[in-house]
Order: sequence, then structure tokens, then C-alpha cells
Amino acid sequence: MTYCLAIKVDEGLVFASDSRTNAGVDNISTYSKMHNFSWPGNRSFVLLSSGNLATTQAVVRRIRADAEGAVNPSLQTISDINAAANYVGKISTDIQRAQAERGTAGSNFEATFIFGGQIAGQAPAIFLIYPQGNYIHESTEYPFLQMGETKYGKPILDRVIRSNTQLELAGRCALVSINSTIRSNLTVGPPVELLMYKKDSLGEGRHMVLTEHDPYYRGLSDAWSEGIRHALNGLPPFEWEYEHKTVQLVQGAAPSQTMG
Amino acid sequence: MTYCLAIKVDEGLVFASDSRTNAGVDNISTYSKMHNFSWPGNRSFVLLSSGNLATTQAVVRRIRADAEGAVNPSLQTISDINAAANYVGKISTDIQRAQAERGTAGSNFEATFIFGGQIAGQAPAIFLIYPQGNYIHESTEYPFLQMGETKYGKPILDRVIRSNTQLELAGRCALVSINSTIRSNLTVGPPVELLMYKKDSLGEGRHMVLTEHDPYYRGLSDAWSEGIRHALNGLPPFEWEYEHKTVQLVQGAAPSQTMG
Repeated sequence: MTYCLAIKVDEGLVFASDSRTNAGVDNISTYSKMHNFSWPGNRSFVLLSSGNLATTQAVVRRIRADAEGAVNPSLQTISDINAAANYVGKISTDIQRAQAERGTAGSNFEATFIFGGQIAGQAPAIFLIYPQGNYIHESTEYPFLQMGETKYGKPILDRVIRSNTQLELAGRCALVSINSTIRSNLTVGPPVELLMYKKDSLGEGRHMVLTEHDPYYRGLSDAWSEGIRHALNGLPPFEWEYEHKTVQLVQGAAPSQTMG
Repeated sequence: MTYCLAIKVDEGLVFASDSRTNAGVDNISTYSKMHNFSWPGNRSFVLLSSGNLATTQAVVRRIRADAEGAVNPSLQTISDINAAANYVGKISTDIQRAQAERGTAGSNFEATFIFGGQIAGQAPAIFLIYPQGNYIHESTEYPFLQMGETKYGKPILDRVIRSNTQLELAGRCALVSINSTIRSNLTVGPPVELLMYKKDSLGEGRHMVLTEHDPYYRGLSDAWSEGIRHALNGLPPFEWEYEHKTVQLVQGAAPSQTMG
């Protein structure tokens, strides 16, 4: 399984991904699911991949080959980011079809992508590209997109992320969303990759690869657990607790744990 | 869909359930999924139900009829809570089989239950009863059980609930877990029922039915959103934010919303 997300705020874009791939529970590997395609000053794209690993690797190879060969269309030449999303979707379906024609019946070659970035002079954008090659953008009220094991990490995004959220704060929120998912589900695992793209910077953005032992990542997880305990202790007591003066606080209920 | 959970802490038991039932997205009703069977001073049980509504209603009817008729076995006469869980599982499979023999092929009559309580002189217990009639108890490290739409509300339980968590605090945590699920998923809806059973009380426990307009429930949700914002603002800034002194706080990003 996988958990990836992208957030679009006024200040820019956030991309985050885990790194666990598995074919069955006893065949687990670590692969980066975040791919950066940048032409500084002109355009910058990020692709997050999930699904069949042979398909996603082939898609990334094709995109790179097209761009290096300066063929048209390629990410280097396409004039509009919607067309770029469509181009990625077309490559994905082409590769899935080629694999299916060669493969045994019943195999699943599907792949899903989150794609986003900015072309000079245009607005930043993020898209979720389905296995069928079609795609959607984020909603106005909840400006984020998720794929894979999305449910564990959704409540924090629902409660916090709005268009006016500060970029770095959205980045930390994405890390918490992935951290909570990793704690609750074995099929999502570190290292966690985070990329924050500042609007109109047209560069590669700030990219972090956080292992479970990374001091920043551990500090963030500990601070979050502490904040959650504090939030829980701040909830209004039930009526009878006032009467009996039995209000107590939770202490050390969620110690710092390994992040895996 | 449904979301129900039970928590077992040293001080007692917590049961919580939503009230939404649906047969398709345009056929939505409100039914209580929490059923109390108590003989004060002697024994007290709670049953949370999910799955096919005709099955779960028939199971509850049968349990009540057995108890009122004082037949053996019934919840009134069974001497051990494991045997009680087995008895509920047997009724569930009997009723599913009877419905399947009568019904059309392809219909799904399955039901899942959370069952728990205490018999005088014995320890309190909680069980998850599968559609197959077999059942499991909670884990030692994570002493809670969930059924239905479980993922949205799991991270908060994973981070907070331990055996030494205070009973009322576990109750508030259960409400937050359900509140987060309701915000993120339309198929789970209010009113929310909460029952807190104090160990060895052998009574009906404290039972609350919280509509989305209930002042306590609204206050709890607002306090939680505020606590989450505070927790997020307390996370360690990225390195470059120190350099550029750009640390900002999130404000009003998650306003008080309707709870539905």
C-alpha cells in the first residue's frame, strides 16, 4: 500500500509520500514515490506514484526520456499544466495496456498518480490522475488530494488545511498526516519525503527525506503526541465530574515510539 | 455504514456508536445501534450492532425474548461472559442462515457486533463478534475494539488509549474518534451514543445520546479543533524558518462547523 498527498495553498504546493512498497505482506521494499522534473526559472513538476511498481517505474522512465529527448509533447515543452496532466495520464494508460497485452489474465497493472507544479506565468496546480488516465483537481473548500491508504490521515487535513494556511504549516500538517497513518497501518512506511514548492519560485522546492530516526521527524512526532494529550486534557469534563471533582489528566499515555 | 467502538480500561468500559443506517446513499435512516441488557447488582451487558439491519434487529429481539422468558441459555442465566459472547454469535449465525434460506441469492445478511459487560464476581470484558459467529477480545497494548468505518478514528485511539487511561477521559476520546469520523465520512452520522460503565458497578452505566446540536457535543468538538490548532502551532519549525524568522501560526483555519 501507499500513502501520498498534495496540498495547494495560496503560498504554494506541498507534496508528501511514504516509501513502502509490497507484493504480499512478506515482500516489502523501500522505493521513493516522489519524482521531480524541474527546469529552473521556467517550470517545475512533482509526480507522486502508487500502484503497480513496474508500471510506475516505466511511466517515470518514459517521462524522463521524452523530456531529455526534447520530443513534443514532453514535460519540457508542454505549454499548459492541464495538458501536462493529460500527457502523464496518456503515458500511464499506454503502459498499462502494453503490460496487460503481454501479461497473464488477472494481473493488475493499474497505477494512480498525484501530479502538480507550475509553468512560468501560470498558476500552480495539483491533480489526481486515475488508472484510467483521467484526472481531477482539488476541491475549493478542502484544497488537498490523497491517494492510497487515505483515511487515517484525513481528519487532521479536514480540520486544518484551508487555502490561507501557511506553506510550512501545511508541510508539517502533511507530515503529521503521514505519521499517523504509519503508526496505524503497517503497509505504509518510512522514510517520508516532503517537498514544499513556493509559488512562482519555479525551482525544485525544498525537499526532505525523513527516516524514522531523523531528529526533526522524531521531534515532530513527540511534539504532536504531547499536543494531542494536551488537547484531550483540555476537553470539557462531563457534568458529574464537576460534582465529584474527579477530573484527571492523561499522563504519558502515548510515549515516544518508533515511527515505523 | 457505521462506526462503533468499545474501550476497556482499568476503571471500566466505554461503548460508543453513531446512528446512521443506509441502504444506498439515498436511503438513509437513524437507528440506535446501542442495546443495554442489565440486571442491576448481578450483571450488565452492552451490545453494539452493525451490518444488515433486519439481522441486527432480529438478534436483539431474540436476546430480549430469551432473557424475558428466562430460558437457558440467555443473558440472564449464562454464568460466564465468554459463553455470553458465544451465545450472541450463535444467535447471529442462526438468524443469518434463516434469512439466507428464504432470501434471494446475492443478498448480504451479515452482521457484526461489539459485545461487552460484566457478571458479578468476574472481570469486565469486551468482544468483537464476527458475522461467522466467532469472536476476539481486545489486545493488551491497544485495549479497544472498532467496527465499521474504523480508519478515520483510529489514530487518536492508537496515540492515547492505554489500560491506565481514566474512564471519563477514554469516553471523551471515543467521542473525538467518532466526531472525526463523522466530519470525514458521510455514511457515519449523529446522534452519537456514549455509555460509560464503571467496573463492579453492575448497573446500566452512564448513557448519553448526543445530537449534533447538543451543547456538550458542540463544545467538545470546538475545544478539540482548538486543541488541534494549538498542537499544530506547537510543532517544531523547519530549520530555514528560524533563519528567516517566518514562523507563523494557523488562525481560524478550522472554524466551528456543523457536526453532521
